[in-house]
Amino acid sequence: MSKSNKGAGADAAPAARPEARIAKGFRDIEAAELKGLNDMLGVIRSVYERYGFDPLETPALEYTDALGKFLPDQDRPNAGVFSFQDDDEQWMSLRYDLTAPLARYVAQNINSLPKPFRRYAFGNVYRNEKPGPGRFRQFMQFDADTVGAESVAADAEICMLAADTLEALGIKRGDYIIKVNSRKVLDGVLELAGVDLTDTTQTGKRLTVLRAMDKFDKFGVEGVAQLLGKGRKDESGDFTPGAGLDDANSRIITSFLTAAQGAREGAIERVNKIIGGNARAEEGLRELETMSNLVTAAGYDASRIAFDPSVVRGLEYYTGPVFEAELTFQVKDEDGNTVRFGSVGGGGRYDDLVARFTGQKVPATGFSIGVSRLQAALAHVGQKAQTALGPVVVLVMDKGEIAAYQKMVQQLRNAGIRSEMYLGSAGMNAQMKYANKRNSPCVVIQGSNEREAGTVTLKDLIEGAKAAAAIKDNKEWKEARAGQVTVRAGDLIAEVRKILARHS
Amino acid sequence: MSKSNKGAGADAAPAARPEARIAKGFRDIEAAELKGLNDMLGVIRSVYERYGFDPLETPALEYTDALGKFLPDQDRPNAGVFSFQDDDEQWMSLRYDLTAPLARYVAQNINSLPKPFRRYAFGNVYRNEKPGPGRFRQFMQFDADTVGAESVAADAEICMLAADTLEALGIKRGDYIIKVNSRKVLDGVLELAGVDLTDTTQTGKRLTVLRAMDKFDKFGVEGVAQLLGKGRKDESGDFTPGAGLDDANSRIITSFLTAAQGAREGAIERVNKIIGGNARAEEGLRELETMSNLVTAAGYDASRIAFDPSVVRGLEYYTGPVFEAELTFQVKDEDGNTVRFGSVGGGGRYDDLVARFTGQKVPATGFSIGVSRLQAALAHVGQKAQTALGPVVVLVMDKGEIAAYQKMVQQLRNAGIRSEMYLGSAGMNAQMKYANKRNSPCVVIQGSNEREAGTVTLKDLIEGAKAAAAIKDNKEWKEARAGQVTVRAGDLIAEVRKILARHS
Repeated sequence: MSKSNKGAGADAAPAARPEARIAKGFRDIEAAELKGLNDMLGVIRSVYERYGFDPLETPALEYTDALGKFLPDQDRPNAGVFSFQDDDEQWMSLRYDLTAPLARYVAQNINSLPKPFRRYAFGNVYRNEKPGPGRFRQFMQFDADTVGAESVAADAEICMLAADTLEALGIKRGDYIIKVNSRKVLDGVLELAGVDLTDTTQTGKRLTVLRAMDKFDKFGVEGVAQLLGKGRKDESGDFTPGAGLDDANSRIITSFLTAAQGAREGAIERVNKIIGGNARAEEGLRELETMSNLVTAAGYDASRIAFDPSVVRGLEYYTGPVFEAELTFQVKDEDGNTVRFGSVGGGGRYDDLVARFTGQKVPATGFSIGVSRLQAALAHVGQKAQTALGPVVVLVMDKGEIAAYQKMVQQLRNAGIRSEMYLGSAGMNAQMKYANKRNSPCVVIQGSNEREAGTVTLKDLIEGAKAAAAIKDNKEWKEARAGQVTVRAGDLIAEVRKILARHS
Repeated sequence: MSKSNKGAGADAAPAARPEARIAKGFRDIEAAELKGLNDMLGVIRSVYERYGFDPLETPALEYTDALGKFLPDQDRPNAGVFSFQDDDEQWMSLRYDLTAPLARYVAQNINSLPKPFRRYAFGNVYRNEKPGPGRFRQFMQFDADTVGAESVAADAEICMLAADTLEALGIKRGDYIIKVNSRKVLDGVLELAGVDLTDTTQTGKRLTVLRAMDKFDKFGVEGVAQLLGKGRKDESGDFTPGAGLDDANSRIITSFLTAAQGAREGAIERVNKIIGGNARAEEGLRELETMSNLVTAAGYDASRIAFDPSVVRGLEYYTGPVFEAELTFQVKDEDGNTVRFGSVGGGGRYDDLVARFTGQKVPATGFSIGVSRLQAALAHVGQKAQTALGPVVVLVMDKGEIAAYQKMVQQLRNAGIRSEMYLGSAGMNAQMKYANKRNSPCVVIQGSNEREAGTVTLKDLIEGAKAAAAIKDNKEWKEARAGQVTVRAGDLIAEVRKILARHS
């Protein structure tokens, strides 16, 4: 960060200069990360296109009422969203996800779209929230959605898409699981446990119960039971108030959660015994069974796509199956503890999102990847971003000859070789430092001796660095001229290619 | 556009529904255009990387004071920019170009960057301006900049980069020209014509003169002379006020402009005679001469990169050479007139943009492509966006068998074939319509007869459409079953591949 100019004190103050600072909660993404990102996006796109999804790009800005208010946990209108008024007084907002703009697009173009409509989209979304470590106010999502398909075959397909995408990115089978649950099943279980879903004064209670269920992986039966009942005190002494269910009702929920423990096969049958008699839950469970049959027939067993009753997903708008893509391999967290890597994306069915515009119910289901979280995961599975080789650097030994150096560099470029002429005004040492900083594979040198002899000297910086590590004596070093070779100027391209071949 | 719900009148009004409408001046980009865009961006990136530029992505939002106010023609603070206050009262704005964020980034990270620093960036920028035909409030720019290089070798390189990029995109030599001018030369000519550059009350006059010069291509000597003097009335009778120069001063400017007419070779020498004695103009001309020598030595003649005294460029911040990439082939404009396609990008040297943060002068030069304008141009040079083939569609003939259909589609996908199962609930006719709308190459059909026989029927929709055009009689049509073949289910992938090979 550059130093603030505010309060510069005794300095002879120039006309007030702005401080060069990135906005709070935002970040610049530099070359190495962008290269990894671009490769990753390319893989995801290719899988999504293979599945028949087509790209769509909607604008970053939308009318606020068209986006709607679907952010979780909001306690004031448009909380969490960057908004302002346009010249004509209409409120505009930066999109906070890619689903709300899709609903607007579908409602606006409903008559011309193929039905069902499959689209994928990736792009930055914006949240006006307090930033934290690894938590930014601009981040990228990569979504696939099928709009206009009522059948849960569409949901099953989304789960297979998620599995195939993770594998295409190099995540091994066994290192991920696509967990599937159903809002209908969850709502039915809540009803069985005495929560009235139609009573809006119980909305808070319902959310507390769902949040408690979401903690099953983390706290186990006992912890969840506390959160469902009177509340839970953690190791640090912090107290989380509970949902206030009595023991019998609490037990309905925990037995639902434990029904899926042990073998994933048969989980649906075990849950069926618990939810018996609740129509909503039974309908949801039948849908999960259909999905299970479809993915099994297509070759995806329960080690890849499986029912998991603890999956809740935060967004209020889900109406049917919900999914979560979890990476199961172990990593160290910030405190050095070994933990599962965890979720890299999720989604579900949302049948009411288009209806808010048109009144017409348009069933839809989709899946969203948290792109930077997934990119972080790939670094753990051997897909580490390699430091890409920089350009070949043609040094400027003689400023009167830059036309000749420029010509060399254009010859290299015309041959498809990434290269540049040093464009600063510094001397030989600084130019070599520059080339090293750029991770250049080699520099091209033509001083007056070489020019007269019709030659160029190539210095292999990677070989040179290795050799330098082995040589202690400065004199010996200079004499060795490690990785350095003088060749005919006409052989420039062929000789540079040899060096590149050595390091690629 | 969907119908507004406002004023729904006699309808039984539902709870107020928002209208599904995209924000004014914004647009959705659909699959075919996105495919062309993605291909184009890939080509530009590969050329920029070959030149040694590295990608950088800065956020869409910045603090307003960090972006500065560099938009042309602004008559109120932050005019043209989307701005709002953050929670901590700081003003934030959506970036209006990629150069201002680059200056912020460089000033903030000056100590860690290689010097010179070459970066490319592409992304959407936002202008809070009145939209018009082809004029949107969100659009994409693709920039390359070299920061920290004082030498005009950096400017020369940017011009070669622009030429190479256009050729890599399929624009033929002779169909484009990179026009180069210099702000120093322009300022010198203005001084010679009696405009006082240090007198801020003459800023308006200076801009009027520059704008008049910019019209040289369009109006010729006579039109420009009117705009430099008392003003100009166009065919429709509209009057544009002039800069009020007297005839002698006006003639200095028009003779400067005409000096470059005729042969491009020798233009610099001819201009030299006119600007003699003005130190600023002479310095600028020497720089243009150096650039000319560099690009000529590298093999770029004056038919590709040439001095053009009418190039002005709008932005106030340029300090040295300025460039404009113009496509010279003819197209029809909205009124049916034949015109040159015109500018697809431009740039120049801006040595003061980082200094506004740090006080330290950091020389910089760059080039920006107007991405959608360039994409429109490519459609004129035979790079027409081909309608990409859609996915193979597996029809659902029997809802009880969707697991079998889903399995087929996964087999196709696993073989790398873009495909999908029909996910709607409609019958055979609607499914065929869907496949046609998706531009599907073929559908896969397995009814009960095929299932019993262990076969599938493939219908080649492209062959079928051709055959249908040749057949008039409905009975004949049905019997011909054009483009239809029944094969063993085990040969599904091989047979689909045959059809795809026919149409790729």
